[in-house]
Amino acid sequence: MSKKTEQQGLFAAGGDAKHNGSEAKLAKEPKGPKVKSDTGGVTAEAMGQRQREISVSEFFTKNRHLLGFDSPRKALLTAVKEAVDNSLDACEEGRILPDLKVSIKRLDGQDDKFTMTVEDNGPGIVKAQVPNVFGRLLYGSKFHRLRQSRGQQGIGISAAGMYGLLTTGNPVRVRSKPGKRSVPLYFEIRIDSSKNRPIWTDKEIDWEKDHGTEVAIDLEGEYRRGQKSVEEFLKLMAVANPHVQLHYTDPDGNVTEYQRATSELPKEVEEIKPHPHGVELGILIKMLQDTECKTIGESLQDDFSRVGPSVAKEICGLAGIKPDTNPRRLATEHVVKLKKAIDATKIMAPPLSCIAPIGEDLIITGLKKEVEADFYLATSRKPVVYRGRPFAIECGIAYGKPGDTLEMTAEGKIVEVAVKKPNEEALMGAADEPIRLIRFANRVPLIFQQAACAITKAVIGTNWKNYGLQQPRGALPIGPMVVFVHIASVWVPFTSESKEAIAGYDEILDELRLGLMECGRKLGTHVRKGKKLANEFKKRNYIETYIPHVVVALKDILKFDDKTAQSALANLTTVLEKSRKL
Amino acid sequence: MSKKTEQQGLFAAGGDAKHNGSEAKLAKEPKGPKVKSDTGGVTAEAMGQRQREISVSEFFTKNRHLLGFDSPRKALLTAVKEAVDNSLDACEEGRILPDLKVSIKRLDGQDDKFTMTVEDNGPGIVKAQVPNVFGRLLYGSKFHRLRQSRGQQGIGISAAGMYGLLTTGNPVRVRSKPGKRSVPLYFEIRIDSSKNRPIWTDKEIDWEKDHGTEVAIDLEGEYRRGQKSVEEFLKLMAVANPHVQLHYTDPDGNVTEYQRATSELPKEVEEIKPHPHGVELGILIKMLQDTECKTIGESLQDDFSRVGPSVAKEICGLAGIKPDTNPRRLATEHVVKLKKAIDATKIMAPPLSCIAPIGEDLIITGLKKEVEADFYLATSRKPVVYRGRPFAIECGIAYGKPGDTLEMTAEGKIVEVAVKKPNEEALMGAADEPIRLIRFANRVPLIFQQAACAITKAVIGTNWKNYGLQQPRGALPIGPMVVFVHIASVWVPFTSESKEAIAGYDEILDELRLGLMECGRKLGTHVRKGKKLANEFKKRNYIETYIPHVVVALKDILKFDDKTAQSALANLTTVLEKSRKL
Repeated sequence: MSKKTEQQGLFAAGGDAKHNGSEAKLAKEPKGPKVKSDTGGVTAEAMGQRQREISVSEFFTKNRHLLGFDSPRKALLTAVKEAVDNSLDACEEGRILPDLKVSIKRLDGQDDKFTMTVEDNGPGIVKAQVPNVFGRLLYGSKFHRLRQSRGQQGIGISAAGMYGLLTTGNPVRVRSKPGKRSVPLYFEIRIDSSKNRPIWTDKEIDWEKDHGTEVAIDLEGEYRRGQKSVEEFLKLMAVANPHVQLHYTDPDGNVTEYQRATSELPKEVEEIKPHPHGVELGILIKMLQDTECKTIGESLQDDFSRVGPSVAKEICGLAGIKPDTNPRRLATEHVVKLKKAIDATKIMAPPLSCIAPIGEDLIITGLKKEVEADFYLATSRKPVVYRGRPFAIECGIAYGKPGDTLEMTAEGKIVEVAVKKPNEEALMGAADEPIRLIRFANRVPLIFQQAACAITKAVIGTNWKNYGLQQPRGALPIGPMVVFVHIASVWVPFTSESKEAIAGYDEILDELRLGLMECGRKLGTHVRKGKKLANEFKKRNYIETYIPHVVVALKDILKFDDKTAQSALANLTTVLEKSRKL
Repeated sequence: MSKKTEQQGLFAAGGDAKHNGSEAKLAKEPKGPKVKSDTGGVTAEAMGQRQREISVSEFFTKNRHLLGFDSPRKALLTAVKEAVDNSLDACEEGRILPDLKVSIKRLDGQDDKFTMTVEDNGPGIVKAQVPNVFGRLLYGSKFHRLRQSRGQQGIGISAAGMYGLLTTGNPVRVRSKPGKRSVPLYFEIRIDSSKNRPIWTDKEIDWEKDHGTEVAIDLEGEYRRGQKSVEEFLKLMAVANPHVQLHYTDPDGNVTEYQRATSELPKEVEEIKPHPHGVELGILIKMLQDTECKTIGESLQDDFSRVGPSVAKEICGLAGIKPDTNPRRLATEHVVKLKKAIDATKIMAPPLSCIAPIGEDLIITGLKKEVEADFYLATSRKPVVYRGRPFAIECGIAYGKPGDTLEMTAEGKIVEVAVKKPNEEALMGAADEPIRLIRFANRVPLIFQQAACAITKAVIGTNWKNYGLQQPRGALPIGPMVVFVHIASVWVPFTSESKEAIAGYDEILDELRLGLMECGRKLGTHVRKGKKLANEFKKRNYIETYIPHVVVALKDILKFDDKTAQSALANLTTVLEKSRKL
């Protein structure tokens, strides 16, 4: 039996030579001479010649609907979203209050090509990393760290640049200044999709800024306002991120300013080590191979969170492994035993410092900022742990207004106010329409694939009739209401790379349901009060409508003069109002 | 401005050094000294230190639900599916009638760990490629070729191996013999997920076989029969692949033999060049950069399908580019013009030799093999082209039986037959249940995510009431029926890497609808005939039920003797039957 290292095997077998040299030829000679087998088919040798690596960029170019670039309209929004997410992550990690400028301009006056620009005041990116960050898929700092962030895959912004290149042929342009004393640089970056590597030029420029990054991408797109638009995305971003100041210019030159409502940055999140209960056998094997610790006992304490000397001893004891065993010498069957021992041991939940929920007050601040309503409430649930990974569910509700027509004045009078039709941009619909659900993961609005999302399933699965709302079977409830749901986690399980919907894991669904029920109960009290108000108004209306007619009749029958009639009217009204115990 | 090549940039910037050396340290020192900025946050330099490549295997380990490994039950099926798909592709490319052995065994008697083995009689895999094929994601021969095949991504079987390693710690075992005169080899392969490269051992073995491959994977799984089981997948595979012989052993040792129903291999598919109308700007730029042709005119004719000298001239003329221009010297703005000229030029549709639909006869053969019904029909639509890529839609229907209770005998008598309850494994449900929809893409059954699939949308969107079936609003029709739908294409747009559902592109939905309507019309005739039969039976039943009573009454009133009564009964029955014009 010959044992090979990875390198030997690969190069000896000529695997990579193929990748570098002959692939272009192969693709170009589909009708070249085939090595035919006895059965007239292709031989293993001929098939082997065709085997080669597929770069991750080639894969996603062909499958770009997986990344959210399936239609020009969605592509424009996805590009803006990826750039904004990166800017906010960078600002927060640098502990800088984010100040963003977003603009969309028509490219050379064309209606189907746009330039999207996002500029931030973040810490900037060092020269050596700019090309990789913008010109290479699956490259970044967030994937391997257990802490909450918007980005998690290292795909998004490079994918946007790749789509731009594909549809306009133009490179991504980046300006970056990583600190006051740094020289600002300008980059033009193209991704080489067959190698998943950047090709770029850079030069020094002048840039009046202390620090920050600006990215500009030309891309095929479709610009439309209304639902699922860039405007909607920014508005929702502002709801979940009240600490952000953002200046937006649309293709027609209209400017919208999203004002900061708090100068409090989200809590700084800390990276945690993997929790033993969330580690699978294969990962455990790998961690023990890679550890720098000399003994199993040390490794358990150093490489994992929440394992102290006594817990480490307990685990080793259960597994029947001496704590001073060299972890690299452990056979698979012993790691299997170790894994079983870990699962059987009680270990404290992981630290929650790795996530930063928004909090009830700021959810309400955010909702008030962007949704006109007459009642706001929020619930921020305590973080829980799912497979060793902490996550927290937060819900908020904005209720009433555009469809509501009654108000009680300061003097306790109920008056009818003009019905306002919700405008195109308003988040809340009319009173007889389904409620508006707004979904967020790690403070990023989720715009597409609402039906496929665990959040939607949880909202539909909640019985809103209990809280005074109508709800058709298997559908969202009806009413003038915006429901806000946020999941904050070190790892959000999305249903696809485009991060549009959350996968329906049971643990997440359970927490979602609890959060929604908590909000629902608070809402119920308010809705019932509103209904009482409406009934009141209806009854009082009856009195005001009919009593004058009764008095006219009395006047006729009893020959009242005008003055007596007036006082009879007043008396009757008072008596009736009183009898209703107002 | 400094121009850099990809390599210089990467290594000069120290990008890869990070990847190789310091990443382990970084992950292990989350609380190490941070370089703090003035604002107390992390500096660009500190962030840059953390940037690194994410290997595609790491990405999919963390996101394995994207590949179909989200639950133990699904994982078992997905692993079998990927191995069977690969075996069938290899056999067909080698022009060998597939003869497969599939087995699932409990691993060391455990109820949650299994060994899945798939053995084929295909052309085998050459020594140098085995480790890459089974131990590296995004590696294969099918991604870059425009021709129909089951696999298309080079992910599946390596992902199954990776999941096996993750959950059991055991390597993938492969036996391969690429031809009669080759020495059979045995491999044990582990994927190194941080590098997406295989680590393996190999040795020579004895194997009584002319040629073939066998793969065995240990993995965490859940074995259950019934819906969405391995058995169901194999049954459906047999429907769409009547040329396959397959021997299956389940964990309890039960053997099922799926018999070959035709010895005709699917048509050999040919690789085609990209069609100009399906090529996007970015791809066009890249093709012109990479071409071996010396002029634009040549490149258009050599690198694309369906472009001859006159079409090439027309395109160049429209674009205002001389046909003898060096393609590598073309500026982006000129390629933009070329692209516009291509789109404005009429070009013959691409050759259809790249796809191999099943055909109406074999669809019916396949359905008859696995579905008991009394009426079969099929429609194989002519291939059409979507973005330069040919695809064909095929539909089939198996109607009636388990719920049907009436039959007409050879003498024209209608008799009631015993109602058969469909068994657990039967594809067809009862008469009062929704029809059973079976979906296929390039002859592979699609088991999961039915609701998210374009095929389902098209079936629900068809008005089955027109064809005599009940259909609740927005749902599948009701009836004893199996609907078979197949899409054959050089590139099937799946909604995720796990290839479970087809994305709803308009062109595909349109063709699906047309195919289903064609089937529906043929079905309608049959269903109406069946209804007539049922009515007939009901009426005849009335005569048989009531006439004897009438005769008894007549006998009383008219004092008939028994004989007269008998003849009266016969006469009356005959007259009534005649009056119904039977």
